[in-house]
Amino acid sequence: MTTQRIGYLGPKGTFTKMAVDSLFEGGEFVSYETIPACLDAVENGEIDTGVVPLENAIEGSVHLTIDYLIHQVNQAIIAELTVPIRQHLLTHPDYHGEEITEIHSHSHAIAQCHQFLHKHYPNAEIFYTASTGRAAEVVKEKGPHAAAIGNHLAAEMNGLDIKESNIHDYDNNHTRFAVVQKEPKTLQVKDHPVEKHKTTVMVTLPQDYVGALHQVLAAFAWRKMNLSKIESRPMKTGLGNYFFLVDVDQPYDQILFPGVQQELEALGCKLKVLGTYPSYEIDVPAPVTK
Amino acid sequence: MTTQRIGYLGPKGTFTKMAVDSLFEGGEFVSYETIPACLDAVENGEIDTGVVPLENAIEGSVHLTIDYLIHQVNQAIIAELTVPIRQHLLTHPDYHGEEITEIHSHSHAIAQCHQFLHKHYPNAEIFYTASTGRAAEVVKEKGPHAAAIGNHLAAEMNGLDIKESNIHDYDNNHTRFAVVQKEPKTLQVKDHPVEKHKTTVMVTLPQDYVGALHQVLAAFAWRKMNLSKIESRPMKTGLGNYFFLVDVDQPYDQILFPGVQQELEALGCKLKVLGTYPSYEIDVPAPVTK
Repeated sequence: MTTQRIGYLGPKGTFTKMAVDSLFEGGEFVSYETIPACLDAVENGEIDTGVVPLENAIEGSVHLTIDYLIHQVNQAIIAELTVPIRQHLLTHPDYHGEEITEIHSHSHAIAQCHQFLHKHYPNAEIFYTASTGRAAEVVKEKGPHAAAIGNHLAAEMNGLDIKESNIHDYDNNHTRFAVVQKEPKTLQVKDHPVEKHKTTVMVTLPQDYVGALHQVLAAFAWRKMNLSKIESRPMKTGLGNYFFLVDVDQPYDQILFPGVQQELEALGCKLKVLGTYPSYEIDVPAPVTK
Repeated sequence: MTTQRIGYLGPKGTFTKMAVDSLFEGGEFVSYETIPACLDAVENGEIDTGVVPLENAIEGSVHLTIDYLIHQVNQAIIAELTVPIRQHLLTHPDYHGEEITEIHSHSHAIAQCHQFLHKHYPNAEIFYTASTGRAAEVVKEKGPHAAAIGNHLAAEMNGLDIKESNIHDYDNNHTRFAVVQKEPKTLQVKDHPVEKHKTTVMVTLPQDYVGALHQVLAAFAWRKMNLSKIESRPMKTGLGNYFFLVDVDQPYDQILFPGVQQELEALGCKLKVLGTYPSYEIDVPAPVTK
C-alpha cells in the first residue's frame, strides 16, 4: 500500500494539525499556508487528501473554503471531523510566579478568552500575532513575563507549560474540518467511531423569488430527510444572488436524493452533491496543567 | 446636539474603519482590538454605537459577533453597511521597479489574492501579519524590496503607494457590518441612499426534529415575506442544538411579524427580533495606482 499524502492548513501547532494527528493512521503530512494553496495541491495531485476548516475556525476564512470548493476546484468532501476548541494560557519554562505583563495570541483567540483576560489579567498588554502557534514561539523568545494563548500542541512544540487550561469563555465551541479528495482513495484512519453519515448539497435558485427556499426545503421535508445545517451564501456573480448549502443527516442513496434532485430541477433549481461522508468527532486529551 | 461616540473593530487602516469613515457624519471614533471589547463598551455606555463585522470579514471572527450579541449583551442592530473588499499591492515610497522579494499581509488577505500572487510573484517569500494594517507598517520599515497587501486606507496611513489595484481573485466580495446600540440614539450619517430595510430575527427550535426548519419557513412564506439570508448556528448548550438567523427583506411591522411569532410559538419555537434597520451599501473611491 502506498503512503497516503495528506495536506492541511498550517502552520504547525494549529487546531487543524491537532485534528489531522488525531484522525489519520500514518502517512506523510504537508503543511500549507492558505486554504487555496492546500486545495490547489489536491487539484494538481501533489497530495492525495486535503484537510481544511469548514466551520468556526480560528486560522482560516471558512467562507473561502466553500467558495473555493465550488468555484475553483473539482473535489469531493469524503469525511468531516469536529474538534473541540480548547484554549490554554501558556507560560515560559522559566516562569515561577512572576507577574505576567504581556499576553500574545491570534486576535480570534484573544477574543475567545475575552472574559478570562478581563478578570485575571486586566493590566497585561495584549500583542496580536498571525497565529496561535506563532504566539507560542514569541513567548519562548520573550521569557517568563510573557504568556501565550494557544492549544496544547503549541505548548508541546515550543516547550511551554500550560499554566491554566480551558480559559476560553464558551464551552461547546467546535471547529469542523472537511477532508477532500479529487480522486477517491482509501483513507487510513485510526479507530474512531463514526458519529453519523452526512451528505452536503448545494442548491442554486433560478432567481431571488419569495418563498423559494421554503419550496426547496419542502422537497426534503416530505421525504422525512433531516437537515442539520443550512446556510445561504452569495454567488460571485453579484449581490442578491444566493445559493444554499444544505447538510442532510443521511448518506446519499439512489432513491430519495435523485427524487429531490428531479423535483428541484422541475422548479428551475440546480442541485450539486459536494460529498457524502462519515462524520468523526474527535476529542483531544486533557492537558496537564503546571 | 452631543457628539456621537462610535466604537469599531480596529486596528486603524482596516476595512471596518473605511466603512465607519464612509458612513458617519462627524463624531468621536474609538478603535477596539476585539469584537467582545467593542460590544462590551457599548454595553457599559463608554460609547453610544458599535460597528462590528457581521459577514465575510477579514479582521474579525463573524460567528463571535453573532454569539456575543445573542448570549452576552442586550443590544439591537440599528443599521447595516456593506463595503466591497478591494485588495491592493502596496509598495514603499522608495520603490522604483526593484524586484519584490517579500510580501506581507494577513493570512486571509494572502488567501484572497492567491491566484494573483501565484501568477505575478511566484518566488516572493510570504510573511503573515496580524492585520493588513500591520503589514503596511512592516513594509514601511523594510524598504522597497517588500510589498504589502491591503486597502487604500492602509496605504494612505503609512505613506505607501498602490502599485497594483484590485488584485483580489474574486469580484463581488463584500464585508457586511452591523451597527449596534444599547439605547436607541439618532445616528448622524452622511447622505447615503438606503438600499432597503431589513429585519433580523433569531428562531430557536424546541428540538432537532425532521422538517422543523421547513415549518418555520412556511410561516414566512405564506405571508409572502422574502428572506434574503438564513443560517443555522449551534447553540452553546451542546452539539446538535441549533438556532436559525433569518434576514427578512422588510421593516418590522405590527401585523405580519407578530403573526409569524404567534404561529412559531404555537409550534414550540421562540422568535427574537435582533433589529429592524436600514441597509447601506457603501462604495469606496477607486484608488490612484502609481
